[in-house]
Amino acid sequence: MGKGRLEAFSDGVLAIIITIMVLELKVPHGSDWGALAPLLPSFWSYVLSFIYVGIYWNNHHHLLHAAGQVSGGVLWANLHLLFWLSLLPFATGWMGENHFAPLPTALYGAVLLMAAVAWYLLQFAIMCTDGKASPLRRALGRDWKGKLSPLLYLLGIALSFWQHWLAQAIYALVALLWLIPDRRLEHVAPRPEH
Amino acid sequence: MGKGRLEAFSDGVLAIIITIMVLELKVPHGSDWGALAPLLPSFWSYVLSFIYVGIYWNNHHHLLHAAGQVSGGVLWANLHLLFWLSLLPFATGWMGENHFAPLPTALYGAVLLMAAVAWYLLQFAIMCTDGKASPLRRALGRDWKGKLSPLLYLLGIALSFWQHWLAQAIYALVALLWLIPDRRLEHVAPRPEH
Amino acid sequence: MGKGRLEAFSDGVLAIIITIMVLELKVPHGSDWGALAPLLPSFWSYVLSFIYVGIYWNNHHHLLHAAGQVSGGVLWANLHLLFWLSLLPFATGWMGENHFAPLPTALYGAVLLMAAVAWYLLQFAIMCTDGKASPLRRALGRDWKGKLSPLLYLLGIALSFWQHWLAQAIYALVALLWLIPDRRLEHVAPRPEH
Amino acid sequence: MGKGRLEAFSDGVLAIIITIMVLELKVPHGSDWGALAPLLPSFWSYVLSFIYVGIYWNNHHHLLHAAGQVSGGVLWANLHLLFWLSLLPFATGWMGENHFAPLPTALYGAVLLMAAVAWYLLQFAIMCTDGKASPLRRALGRDWKGKLSPLLYLLGIALSFWQHWLAQAIYALVALLWLIPDRRLEHVAPRPEH
Repeated sequence: MGKGRLEAFSDGVLAIIITIMVLELKVPHGSDWGALAPLLPSFWSYVLSFIYVGIYWNNHHHLLHAAGQVSGGVLWANLHLLFWLSLLPFATGWMGENHFAPLPTALYGAVLLMAAVAWYLLQFAIMCTDGKASPLRRALGRDWKGKLSPLLYLLGIALSFWQHWLAQAIYALVALLWLIPDRRLEHVAPRPEH
Repeated sequence: MGKGRLEAFSDGVLAIIITIMVLELKVPHGSDWGALAPLLPSFWSYVLSFIYVGIYWNNHHHLLHAAGQVSGGVLWANLHLLFWLSLLPFATGWMGENHFAPLPTALYGAVLLMAAVAWYLLQFAIMCTDGKASPLRRALGRDWKGKLSPLLYLLGIALSFWQHWLAQAIYALVALLWLIPDRRLEHVAPRPEH
Repeated sequence: MGKGRLEAFSDGVLAIIITIMVLELKVPHGSDWGALAPLLPSFWSYVLSFIYVGIYWNNHHHLLHAAGQVSGGVLWANLHLLFWLSLLPFATGWMGENHFAPLPTALYGAVLLMAAVAWYLLQFAIMCTDGKASPLRRALGRDWKGKLSPLLYLLGIALSFWQHWLAQAIYALVALLWLIPDRRLEHVAPRPEH
Repeated sequence: MGKGRLEAFSDGVLAIIITIMVLELKVPHGSDWGALAPLLPSFWSYVLSFIYVGIYWNNHHHLLHAAGQVSGGVLWANLHLLFWLSLLPFATGWMGENHFAPLPTALYGAVLLMAAVAWYLLQFAIMCTDGKASPLRRALGRDWKGKLSPLLYLLGIALSFWQHWLAQAIYALVALLWLIPDRRLEHVAPRPEH
């Protein structure tokens, strides 16, 4: 399995996820401001999810760039990541339609948390496949962003049941953290494909 | 018709199938656990179908890798396979919404069965096109997984009408069987494209 | 504009069209045969449209293969073709849900007719761009299939209002005609890209 | 990040946007002309949006062709453009279903306006990344189309609340302006990728 086809399939799935989320922005029946206003929470949810998928797409490219071989483990770790990201349209729609009610907001955070865990596993699978000489291992270093994000998601999930706006703020904060490109991975020379 | 474009089109269709299945996870109207609980069967159906499409995507790559030429027969055998897989979102949604009622569970198995038959035909079309020297022919060997799966699907369809949970167990078992990568095909040296 | 990107975009649109058509197969609410039976017309419509998109995808590849340059005219002729094909899911869904009522059956034929006209225009645009030496011009020859199909679609549209099953038979007949690969185009040596 | 993957992802998103818009053409319940007639505004909206996405796809190719490096800024400027275009299916559906009511018509213009602004920012990001020698800078020249379009969109938004047909005419006029391929960018020799 070449990296090229793994990238192409992942790009395809991410492109579809980012686009079908807009289908959860249900066209309202009225045609005045009163019909549009209830969609504002859905719109905010859509913007946030769009940014998250964009971040994953961007970092996914850098991650695969630093990977050497694609083993069966890497492949399934990648599908596992895509699985959790594929739940984003559902979680986005539920959170938006219910105007950030506690449980939907917590579920949204849980999907982000599971995607972060899946990302961690994907990194781990790539490093295991490439062995001790893995350029990814050296590049990641202490990986503070990767370790901090799940903790922040957990905090967001907990806050959902108390002050849901704080949860939103935390989800937005993590997105901002990751918007800054991951320079560690950008500077890794890719290993040739086998 | 080059293998590259056949792969790209198949990847595109599989990426869309795996992603639009999530649209059958209808966003519930309430925002509490009571609204989420009825979705659990749909969620399980989604997980199972996601794994199946992932398996087909993975093995499809290995199969085409071992193929030589792409004839018109191979092309239509491939579209035939994509046809049955494209029915998975429908079968998944129906089975999930009806909480594994007998007929939807049987139909789900029937779609899996037809996809397995289509897979068998695609293998056959590739071997016919490549003739006696087909590397696929040697690699497949006795193909016990390919022969066992349809029998298990038939068993699952029959059990749907008696104990539908047994049918689910069998569908999951076949998925597990195939999760193990098909090492026969992995080790085949691809023939150059013509 | 290279042929490669035109092909990739067209493949993407065709892959999405062929897959979202299944969303018009609405998951029924009941879980017995009585719930499934009304879907049979929709299923037949889906099968027919799936075959049509498959045919267009296949022949589109051969057509572009025989094309030399991609001009702005070719590009918009191609988008024009994709436009009519993108209406197939709508026409398929309307015909299926209304159990082949006259007007939906005629509209389905009209969409097929417009796609055939768009196909003809795309051939024309390619030949104009490539000039007198166009390999497509020589390969097409008298193009009896291209000329017969619109007439048959027109016949099908007319018969929709009298005996709609005859219209279905004609639509299926044209599909069969085209299932046979177009050997004229297969044997054309492609001209190098400019 | 190579230009190739940026193009492939953008093509994927644009192909999905152009295709899922047809899902907003809801299949009517009746089967006569009376059921079809209310869809005419939706159909016109669909045609207009299809042409706009086609234009963006075409010009996006030329724009990236003239770009040198792909920086993080270019990448996010590109995702920003895709974000606004991804709202087109929603805006198209709302405008069509409400038969060109003032607010939906204005919102449609606002989405077009924001996409034009995003396009301008993308051009700017590419020129900043490539520095003074940017071939895009020289090619764009005075960029009268890029400067005129936002003004026309603003005019269209204002006219939506007075005579909505005038707004439609202006949106169609801008599309016609851009249908003419942008010869400035076509003739730029691309710089090699870094």
